[in-house]
Amino acid sequence: MTSIQYIVSHRLFNSSVISLIILNAVVIGFETYPNILDPNQQFFHWMEVVFLWAFTLEIVLRMTALKPSGFFRSGWNVFDFIIVASGHLFVGGHLISVLRVLRVLRVLRAITVIPSLQKLVAALFRTIPAIGNIMILMGIIFYIFAVIGTSLFKDIAPEYFGSLHSTLLTLFQVVTLESWASGVMRPILVDAPWAWWYFVAFILVGTFIIINLFIGVIVNNVQEVAVISHKEDAEDSDDLENNEPVSLEKEVVSLRKEVSEIKQLLINSQGNRDTSNS
Amino acid sequence: MTSIQYIVSHRLFNSSVISLIILNAVVIGFETYPNILDPNQQFFHWMEVVFLWAFTLEIVLRMTALKPSGFFRSGWNVFDFIIVASGHLFVGGHLISVLRVLRVLRVLRAITVIPSLQKLVAALFRTIPAIGNIMILMGIIFYIFAVIGTSLFKDIAPEYFGSLHSTLLTLFQVVTLESWASGVMRPILVDAPWAWWYFVAFILVGTFIIINLFIGVIVNNVQEVAVISHKEDAEDSDDLENNEPVSLEKEVVSLRKEVSEIKQLLINSQGNRDTSNS
Amino acid sequence: MTSIQYIVSHRLFNSSVISLIILNAVVIGFETYPNILDPNQQFFHWMEVVFLWAFTLEIVLRMTALKPSGFFRSGWNVFDFIIVASGHLFVGGHLISVLRVLRVLRVLRAITVIPSLQKLVAALFRTIPAIGNIMILMGIIFYIFAVIGTSLFKDIAPEYFGSLHSTLLTLFQVVTLESWASGVMRPILVDAPWAWWYFVAFILVGTFIIINLFIGVIVNNVQEVAVISHKEDAEDSDDLENNEPVSLEKEVVSLRKEVSEIKQLLINSQGNRDTSNS
Amino acid sequence: MTSIQYIVSHRLFNSSVISLIILNAVVIGFETYPNILDPNQQFFHWMEVVFLWAFTLEIVLRMTALKPSGFFRSGWNVFDFIIVASGHLFVGGHLISVLRVLRVLRVLRAITVIPSLQKLVAALFRTIPAIGNIMILMGIIFYIFAVIGTSLFKDIAPEYFGSLHSTLLTLFQVVTLESWASGVMRPILVDAPWAWWYFVAFILVGTFIIINLFIGVIVNNVQEVAVISHKEDAEDSDDLENNEPVSLEKEVVSLRKEVSEIKQLLINSQGNRDTSNS
Repeated sequence: MTSIQYIVSHRLFNSSVISLIILNAVVIGFETYPNILDPNQQFFHWMEVVFLWAFTLEIVLRMTALKPSGFFRSGWNVFDFIIVASGHLFVGGHLISVLRVLRVLRVLRAITVIPSLQKLVAALFRTIPAIGNIMILMGIIFYIFAVIGTSLFKDIAPEYFGSLHSTLLTLFQVVTLESWASGVMRPILVDAPWAWWYFVAFILVGTFIIINLFIGVIVNNVQEVAVISHKEDAEDSDDLENNEPVSLEKEVVSLRKEVSEIKQLLINSQGNRDTSNS
Repeated sequence: MTSIQYIVSHRLFNSSVISLIILNAVVIGFETYPNILDPNQQFFHWMEVVFLWAFTLEIVLRMTALKPSGFFRSGWNVFDFIIVASGHLFVGGHLISVLRVLRVLRVLRAITVIPSLQKLVAALFRTIPAIGNIMILMGIIFYIFAVIGTSLFKDIAPEYFGSLHSTLLTLFQVVTLESWASGVMRPILVDAPWAWWYFVAFILVGTFIIINLFIGVIVNNVQEVAVISHKEDAEDSDDLENNEPVSLEKEVVSLRKEVSEIKQLLINSQGNRDTSNS
Repeated sequence: MTSIQYIVSHRLFNSSVISLIILNAVVIGFETYPNILDPNQQFFHWMEVVFLWAFTLEIVLRMTALKPSGFFRSGWNVFDFIIVASGHLFVGGHLISVLRVLRVLRVLRAITVIPSLQKLVAALFRTIPAIGNIMILMGIIFYIFAVIGTSLFKDIAPEYFGSLHSTLLTLFQVVTLESWASGVMRPILVDAPWAWWYFVAFILVGTFIIINLFIGVIVNNVQEVAVISHKEDAEDSDDLENNEPVSLEKEVVSLRKEVSEIKQLLINSQGNRDTSNS
Repeated sequence: MTSIQYIVSHRLFNSSVISLIILNAVVIGFETYPNILDPNQQFFHWMEVVFLWAFTLEIVLRMTALKPSGFFRSGWNVFDFIIVASGHLFVGGHLISVLRVLRVLRVLRAITVIPSLQKLVAALFRTIPAIGNIMILMGIIFYIFAVIGTSLFKDIAPEYFGSLHSTLLTLFQVVTLESWASGVMRPILVDAPWAWWYFVAFILVGTFIIINLFIGVIVNNVQEVAVISHKEDAEDSDDLENNEPVSLEKEVVSLRKEVSEIKQLLINSQGNRDTSNS
């Protein structure tokens, strides 16, 4: 273990990085207040330079410790690298809007650095494929209702159904049940009293699919927990590692075979002795 | 296997159909923009003709491969047939509103063609009977509250409670919790301060039933998962197929019987020998 | 079985009662439309008399078949009796509002008459005690926030927080998340910028308790399902009714004891023989 | 047991305290009505003095019975002590607003005094650490979106995004889906048509995390129930306390070993006898 590997793996290294991220987040927060930012613009500029180089140093140290090949193997490290590198790329423009957005993403690095958060986010990402099919189905339903809605209500309510993309946004609003009746449907009902079936149908289908998406995640999680607890059960019986429940049955079956052999042996021996005695 | 059956079952056949459906969906999407549709009306008309005959060819090929009797056995195929046939029926009217709605339903055919989506939708449909009784109960509750609401608030808030069918729509809005207080109840409270019990009672009863509907779906799904994992457990122990947990107990019981017989044999033999020795 | 018991238990009797209830519901629905009711007031009056006496006959028949003592043992029958009897009590006033509300409750009798609905509603009622404690806790939280809210915002927003009972209604609106910010909080923020903590705290506490109420119902249901499937498992192993999993362990323990005795016997016999042989 | 311990542990003591708390809650409720409070200000002042000293007496009795050291060991008792003591501290100011808020918290003492409520609240508190990580993640997401939102929309919608803290409140409103489109997003869309991605992204990420927070609580509860029912299963087999499922396997393994030894003994004995016989 080189001295750099020692530094990187030290408890204090991780703690300082977490502190730096929190401090950086606080500074970025203060920058959003013009009455704090404007008189201290120079101070905040130098703070930014200090944070940027501190994070660069951290990345370089970790990259040296793990070798670049090992460092980029983890998606989290790639994410860290991009976040910090983009800070250097955009450093020319003074505190422009895009840079500010990029800089605040550094707060996301807290997830990389705190292991329990990293595990949680990894778990969240794992649930995405399980709900992938439902997302495709939801997309199809959204698209069909968007085309129908645009055709039907384009002229009645142009601000909600004027074009396909604004209809998609309106449908997203409707599926969150926000002002779907008071804001969107009731003004349309004045001109098209039959329009209620469109909204009721979309809400019934949309929420039914969302509920199933929701349930997909729940069932997935419960299953995972069940599998884990099953494994833990198996690990609890660690003094009998090679004997799974199945092998208990095998054990009993072969036990019975052996007992049968013993019985046969005894019967034979009895027969033998009877003959030898007679 | 005839050459048509070979074509239909080929991987490329399914992929081309999926591509056609997606392409058709994109074209239908562009048609909703008047500034794209109007200068190219002729182009879109011919695209529609091409898509319609392409889908007709696809249906005819699949019908020939499976024989009409086999083809119509699957509900998905009947659905495909109706969607495509209706395109021919309405082709006379140029791009009328009803036809446009019918054509966008072709996007739903993606569900028929992508097997994983077909499985998902079949699973969604299967949950419907499980929640059928709750739907009937919900219908009864809606009807009772609608009749009471119409009687009570017909003159106070005619736009919400003017007739039985508009009250039913209002109750649907209330059960989604959309503007139920700010939009519907509070203006009524001005004239009828006692009206709060009607809304609070309906929301408590309505959401309680919806939560139970929701839970019905969850429990149904968890149960299904449990049954499947149980089966998988049973299949895991495939080298002992004939030994279910129950037979383990049988095994032990008969093992004990045999051991008892051995003991008896030994005691007898000992007694024998003792007599023979003495 | 008397002839009345035969009539009451006949399939056709139940079917006719269900048909009558549905027909009555439809008639009550039509009565809410003034343009249908007003020209046919006499017709609807006679329909009501017919329905009332038909239901009375039904109740009397069922009461005779079961004896009054047996009839009133079931809560559902008591409910039926009250619904029908109240129709006779209020028959003096012609179609008054209270009577109309009472009459529509007859639709609820569908639950009594359709067994699967009766089971479902009984199941819903059974979940209530399981969530009783959470309801009490919710009541305490509501009361505390109502007293605080009335004290703080009585003068700022009298229409929402003017008195303890109107605050309770506002809190119910806030907990359903309906216009809690746009309608209730933001106008108050103008006068009292610190008021956000009151609403955020109430929403966090309120939704957290409601989620737990929700979960209480889910866990309750899953548990019930688990208990039922467990029982079914037990019933599956009906050929070994007296051998529960526990007795398997007993069996093995006593088996081992017996095997030990056999070993002892064999060692003794060996020793015996050795002595006798030497 | 001293006479004080006898009094404190008597059923009537607890019942009277519960009655006092309910009575106090009712009195505090009446005080919020100015037309009841104003003519009887003296009466309510004396009621308050009576309640305060009654609760003080209760606390002193319980403290004497348990000794101060034992009394303050329970967090619930510390809570009771602070609530009652603060009543004495603020008694100087006549019915001021802060005191009123403090006094209504006495209703929370119902949780301390009713054991089933105390258990429920303890269970609710236990679920908090399980969702701690999700809360931190939610905090990070809120903070990032708040900084971005303030940068982007500070000048377009100052009442919603004017400063970091008002943006945080707006994001809380958006995540509860309250008027997020009709109130917050649509007015911004007029000036910044690209703003929809900010709201859609925040709602998708926010609700996804909340759903997972929700599911965390559900899975936690289901697991707890599973563990409890597992324990109960184990306790059911109380006549075999020392034989867990694992020891069944141990039992069978050592049984088999013993049977093998028996077989070996028999084979040896047979060999012995054969030699001795020959």
